[in-house]
Amino acid sequence: MREKMMSRVIIENVLPEIDGGKFSIKRVPRQKVVVRADIFTDGHDALTAILLVKAPGRQNWDEIPMRFLSNDKWEAFFRVSELGVYKYSVWASVDLVSTWQNDLRKKFEAGQDVRLDLAVGRGILKTIIGKVKEEDRNILKTFLEIINKGDVTRAVASCLEKDILSIAKKCLDLKDGVVYDKELTVSVERPEAGFGAWYELFPRSCGLGAAKPGTFKDCIALLGEISRMGFSILYLPPIHPIGQKNRKGKNNATSSLPEDPGSPWAIGSASGGHMSIEPSLGTIKDFERLVREARKVGLEIALDLAFQCSPGHPYIKEYPEWFKKSPDGSIQYAENPPKKYEDIVPFNFETRNAQELWEELRNIVLFWVHKGVKTFRVDNPHTKPFAFWEWLINQVRSEYPEVIFLSEAFTRPKVMYRLAKLGFSQSYTYFTWRNTKREFTEYLTDLTQSQIKEYFRPNFWTNTPDILPEHLQYGGRPAFIARFILAATLSSNYGIYGPAFELCVSEALPGKEEYLNSEKYEIKHWDRDKDGNLKDIITLVNKIRKENPALQETNNVKFCEVDNDNLLFYMKATEDFSNVLLIIVNLDPYHAQSGWVRVPISELGIGNDQQYLVVDLLSRDRYFWTGERNFILLDPIAMPAHILRLHHRVRRETDFDYYL
Amino acid sequence: MREKMMSRVIIENVLPEIDGGKFSIKRVPRQKVVVRADIFTDGHDALTAILLVKAPGRQNWDEIPMRFLSNDKWEAFFRVSELGVYKYSVWASVDLVSTWQNDLRKKFEAGQDVRLDLAVGRGILKTIIGKVKEEDRNILKTFLEIINKGDVTRAVASCLEKDILSIAKKCLDLKDGVVYDKELTVSVERPEAGFGAWYELFPRSCGLGAAKPGTFKDCIALLGEISRMGFSILYLPPIHPIGQKNRKGKNNATSSLPEDPGSPWAIGSASGGHMSIEPSLGTIKDFERLVREARKVGLEIALDLAFQCSPGHPYIKEYPEWFKKSPDGSIQYAENPPKKYEDIVPFNFETRNAQELWEELRNIVLFWVHKGVKTFRVDNPHTKPFAFWEWLINQVRSEYPEVIFLSEAFTRPKVMYRLAKLGFSQSYTYFTWRNTKREFTEYLTDLTQSQIKEYFRPNFWTNTPDILPEHLQYGGRPAFIARFILAATLSSNYGIYGPAFELCVSEALPGKEEYLNSEKYEIKHWDRDKDGNLKDIITLVNKIRKENPALQETNNVKFCEVDNDNLLFYMKATEDFSNVLLIIVNLDPYHAQSGWVRVPISELGIGNDQQYLVVDLLSRDRYFWTGERNFILLDPIAMPAHILRLHHRVRRETDFDYYL
Repeated sequence: MREKMMSRVIIENVLPEIDGGKFSIKRVPRQKVVVRADIFTDGHDALTAILLVKAPGRQNWDEIPMRFLSNDKWEAFFRVSELGVYKYSVWASVDLVSTWQNDLRKKFEAGQDVRLDLAVGRGILKTIIGKVKEEDRNILKTFLEIINKGDVTRAVASCLEKDILSIAKKCLDLKDGVVYDKELTVSVERPEAGFGAWYELFPRSCGLGAAKPGTFKDCIALLGEISRMGFSILYLPPIHPIGQKNRKGKNNATSSLPEDPGSPWAIGSASGGHMSIEPSLGTIKDFERLVREARKVGLEIALDLAFQCSPGHPYIKEYPEWFKKSPDGSIQYAENPPKKYEDIVPFNFETRNAQELWEELRNIVLFWVHKGVKTFRVDNPHTKPFAFWEWLINQVRSEYPEVIFLSEAFTRPKVMYRLAKLGFSQSYTYFTWRNTKREFTEYLTDLTQSQIKEYFRPNFWTNTPDILPEHLQYGGRPAFIARFILAATLSSNYGIYGPAFELCVSEALPGKEEYLNSEKYEIKHWDRDKDGNLKDIITLVNKIRKENPALQETNNVKFCEVDNDNLLFYMKATEDFSNVLLIIVNLDPYHAQSGWVRVPISELGIGNDQQYLVVDLLSRDRYFWTGERNFILLDPIAMPAHILRLHHRVRRETDFDYYL
Repeated sequence: MREKMMSRVIIENVLPEIDGGKFSIKRVPRQKVVVRADIFTDGHDALTAILLVKAPGRQNWDEIPMRFLSNDKWEAFFRVSELGVYKYSVWASVDLVSTWQNDLRKKFEAGQDVRLDLAVGRGILKTIIGKVKEEDRNILKTFLEIINKGDVTRAVASCLEKDILSIAKKCLDLKDGVVYDKELTVSVERPEAGFGAWYELFPRSCGLGAAKPGTFKDCIALLGEISRMGFSILYLPPIHPIGQKNRKGKNNATSSLPEDPGSPWAIGSASGGHMSIEPSLGTIKDFERLVREARKVGLEIALDLAFQCSPGHPYIKEYPEWFKKSPDGSIQYAENPPKKYEDIVPFNFETRNAQELWEELRNIVLFWVHKGVKTFRVDNPHTKPFAFWEWLINQVRSEYPEVIFLSEAFTRPKVMYRLAKLGFSQSYTYFTWRNTKREFTEYLTDLTQSQIKEYFRPNFWTNTPDILPEHLQYGGRPAFIARFILAATLSSNYGIYGPAFELCVSEALPGKEEYLNSEKYEIKHWDRDKDGNLKDIITLVNKIRKENPALQETNNVKFCEVDNDNLLFYMKATEDFSNVLLIIVNLDPYHAQSGWVRVPISELGIGNDQQYLVVDLLSRDRYFWTGERNFILLDPIAMPAHILRLHHRVRRETDFDYYL
């Protein structure tokens, strides 16, 4: 009871806090964590508040003073630097020194008798003097002498010295205050979790000869080209032996011809399972060489975690209890009625042998981690238990905090968000189906302006082997370019499935958003240098992303006004506004569109009459703009977007020719 | 680990939930608690969810099936009936029967082979048959026979029977699912916490002779009049002995004349303290008679809990350690620099003897509870520790759940809300300073549309002895009437300080929102029947409140459109729309204002061309309206408001003369 009596200070509504502190927020090194809390007490006493931060593995709290904003809200921030889990909490207490100074000031200004307040102050000063170091002690003693001398005006002036407060704050004791009742956590991952350009590629389609399927060696030959385009991650669909039983034919046919290679997601055959390599691709040594060679040109290999088996997977015989049986004793294949996946058998995560199964799946991840793979794209995580992923990610991260997991959960929003909360580094999104200005604005506002931004890192994909979105089927090359620029500039993480993307492949199954003659079921022989390919624009945009830190964050997107619904206008800027990009995309792939943009000049510190220079990083065109409203015309055939970099400097008379 | 593995279902975002379940939501008997939660699992399995409810003192959960809304959101509600604390939580599990039925239906409709699914169904039915009562068992056996016969179409039809699902739900076992990890609570208070009209009165001003101060006996003589006006609670400022030392004179003068009665909030003298009666008012027996007589005419007496002392309070000598000492050894009086309250000494809630102090203050409350007082207006709760109030209210309520506490905390919003969360039944609000349409709309939307509505019950006061708001100083009688109607119809709980209010007293201290010659410092001799008094309109509005259940709730207010910013238009309706009021108030006390209202007819089930009758409960005027848009003209001199009751019935040809 006594402790409760003394806890006069209330700390509530601490943000960010996900589900009452059950989950971590996410950051990469150098990012800020801005913490806000409502802090108040009864009566009129002044308060002092501290943000407590503990870096991974540390024993003690770092203390960061919080500043009062308004309406009982306080704020402070810290920057993370180390991988692992940071903790943070909030401490607060009544600030006796400020309370006394405030009261004294008000009474003195009202001409009231302050002798008792001076006496109170003497007591406070003496207490502090007993706790501080010599230098500070001498400062306080000087004040105390003036107070003791009896000249009230001079005494009050001494009492109100800011030094008293700052010295008093040095000897705060955390025991004398209230600590928020939760320790909140930040999961800090390596920088690549926050910024990356993904390229998805089927190794078997990398062969140079028309008849020969591609191998890892052919992949190695392509690394230079992919790296030159500016990608950072090369993601491969499953590279494991493909099942023979119920193998799918072209266009997902339920029967296959002998020459059909099958879907790479039907994992497992007599040649092995999730820890083996499809023999036609090469050997485990070839794969290890691919990982090494990729690293040399700045590329990281990402693998696919597809936790399911072909009916011929060795597990089916070794661990029959890991699978569900039909009443006729057969093993149940995967289905989402009326859809059937005859070439795939799901694991039964509710089996009595679940622990054994979970541990084997963890060992698969660790196997590839030991081969140098530190990034995984996880296939359909929403069809396996949440608790499994939470356990798996924690198990892997506790030993290898650098491992990145991308959640391929094209499902309902709350399921996607839950997977992100429990630990996935990045997530597929609905970007692929967002087309209009309103859709982009609402979706990005959800992702970047609500608490979702704290734990859900979007990865925007233009296309995938499963999805050829409608706008790419009908919009032609301008649509491909516009979608690419949108993905690559709205989100710091994005991906394309190539070469289908950069070759503008647009033939779909009739009435569906799926590729005709999908590479999932057959080997392709792409002419990567075909006329009209997008390699140059991809290379340029990836270069712009690397040179402009504003594009290396996602949550800094700010939508701005433009008086044409076919034009999307957004600003991306660094925290300090040293890098400001104004991006306008023409969403209409068929017609030139024009409009007047409203540049947020007041936020940018530009006066109404002040001229400023914007340079289009795509065309290198330069424009002198003035004021908020400026004219834009975008012809999609030439280039459906501007990426304008703001060059702005307060103009002084002496540097009139600054821009010349 | 095993348990975690099996918890496939996620329950999150359960609402209402205040601060992670730390505080209770509030209800009165017969009110609904609508509970929503996000519930989902991996994969495509169907779910079943149950709202668990435990009434006060019960051992077992009541189970209420939840219904699926959309986007993984589920909902159910319960109604409270008993005083005390209800608990609620949410249970969910995978619904094997629905999952099987859904899959079977989809496959059958797609023309697929369903023999294995029928076999699965046989197994499911056999399991259920083993758990249910005979009647249900026979139903299931009939289905099973049809399935066994082998006609697939008939078998499928039997499998899809709804009875199977409803019988299966009867034998759910809570052990086979997931329970939300918190038990949330509802504090149910007596109906008067939710609906009441307060009248504040200084007993010492009730004397009939001009020279004689009023007594409790004079109060008793007034009970009939106050009851006839329709009030339900008669609230008295402190009735305890008033201190002599530093007694305030007229208009808060720091020195008083011998005939000055002093402020009732300066409690304590040689005649006693918080458990005594100011001798000039009468005896404790007189007070008990007042409580009894009030009850006879339907009035409840509310007392003021002002936990502070005059410098002459007996506690000062008996318990000097309960007060703060100045450096000169004197006891510190209350101040909020530069304001001073020389006639008041605050308790030191941080004293080492805090437990003794807290218990004495609780005993004060219990003393008056034992005298029949069940409602308290708490003076300045925000200047005492939050933990104290939480403790005090719990202590009193555990024995007397019927006790109502009204928080007089005119302070910052988060402090007001915290006091409500920790247990205050009702709270003073900013209503007194809300004037414009935008201010009313925004403030009421905050109070009634956010989570605040779950724990903060507003009590709208037109005026108090401390506050004569500016609009009443300048707006004349029309302003008083408009403010009264706003308070009494926007909020189910409201209060006036009379007779200053119904006599339209408007003289203020220059430049302040305080009464000139405030009754706080002198005895008044009101002419309660003076020309222009508001007794009739008050009586009428209170009668309307009693006859219209839509006015007995606060959170049902809905603001509607009217094309004039001087007119405020809102609807109050019961849940079932059996009682619908359309209220329009002219906020301009000087001029007639007119406009076109937009009645939310589609919500009310009225067609665009349909005529409906509205009756003004203030004037008894009747209007036939049609469609959304209807014209309104309000002259503040005649009456600044309409309280229109909707009489609407779908018109059939046979009852064409329904309204005649």
